[in-house]
Amino acid sequence: MEFSSKLLENAVYEMSQLPGIGKRSALRLVLHLLKQPEAQTGRLAEALNTLRSQIKFCKSCHNISDLDLCEICANPARDNSIVCVVEDIRDVMAIENTAQFKGLYHVLGGKISPVEGIGPQHLNIDSLLEKVRSCGIKELIFALSATMEGDTTNFYLYKKLQDEDIITSTLARGVPVGDELEYADEVTLGRSILNRIPFENSLKANS
Amino acid sequence: MEFSSKLLENAVYEMSQLPGIGKRSALRLVLHLLKQPEAQTGRLAEALNTLRSQIKFCKSCHNISDLDLCEICANPARDNSIVCVVEDIRDVMAIENTAQFKGLYHVLGGKISPVEGIGPQHLNIDSLLEKVRSCGIKELIFALSATMEGDTTNFYLYKKLQDEDIITSTLARGVPVGDELEYADEVTLGRSILNRIPFENSLKANS
Repeated sequence: MEFSSKLLENAVYEMSQLPGIGKRSALRLVLHLLKQPEAQTGRLAEALNTLRSQIKFCKSCHNISDLDLCEICANPARDNSIVCVVEDIRDVMAIENTAQFKGLYHVLGGKISPVEGIGPQHLNIDSLLEKVRSCGIKELIFALSATMEGDTTNFYLYKKLQDEDIITSTLARGVPVGDELEYADEVTLGRSILNRIPFENSLKANS
Repeated sequence: MEFSSKLLENAVYEMSQLPGIGKRSALRLVLHLLKQPEAQTGRLAEALNTLRSQIKFCKSCHNISDLDLCEICANPARDNSIVCVVEDIRDVMAIENTAQFKGLYHVLGGKISPVEGIGPQHLNIDSLLEKVRSCGIKELIFALSATMEGDTTNFYLYKKLQDEDIITSTLARGVPVGDELEYADEVTLGRSILNRIPFENSLKANS
């Protein structure tokens, strides 16, 4: 792509460094900004800069937070004996949206992935173990994605926690609510049969 | 979407003001920046700010340019008797990529669109008319998109230029090179029959 302006080329290059944004999309976004008032570009640039330089993470759960303790960890109404272990803050937002969980979270910041060079030492695992040992946690829910990396991380945590006196659980995998059985993939359908639950439990969940 | 941090919410909001980027994509992009070195965010913010504040447009063709005259207008090897009228600078880049055009461009900056409240007075039309009257232009090529707005703009320009001693032409519309006839839409195929060209001309274009 040949640009008529170095400034334009530079802005498009930096924009195209974002994931999922190629050169063409970047050009479209940058040209859009040029058609908007200059203040909009200023606000975008400042918001990104401020976030990046002033970002803080909750000291307890590693969620992004403007305070030392995030709103969830600081809320006395939450049950601090049950902790849900997630990969990143989007998972916290997703689970909070369900309004089905009243415990606390622990954000790992990723999954163990030898392919990408991410080992246990890159994740917030030490602070999780410390929390388990010192804070009277009764149950840990592993809520990582059902991929090889997720399973590896689950298993690593499980091994590390074997000697602790806590219950570990993992999210139920099965046919999504509202889906037709015939369209479910075999692995999911198979798991939903193996891990079937007492019918009375499903009545409770629906009510 | 509930955010655990005002800084994050603000950055996601500003990012989601860009076209085609919803709240979820914006969150993904912003979280990606948080995982990268702080310098990357700084470079992106600065590139956008610098572009927006220092952007210049070619005085002759309104293309984005770092100088008063863009490289194309300033190039003595280009044929200044033929001018291609386009909507925006992406069209200039697309036509330049074909290496089939050796004349100059004129960037209108949009199309006449009553629905969006864009009238002729919002486009670079006066400077085009002045150029036609004073610069010895022999041919104008209307290279706007084949939409209602494009056709309206073409027709407006055509009417304005009726008394001038120049040739006006428009891009050929037809079945794309390499496409099967059966997959072409009816309007395109119809136009390609109506506007058929002497066979010798197609031989010239291929050589």
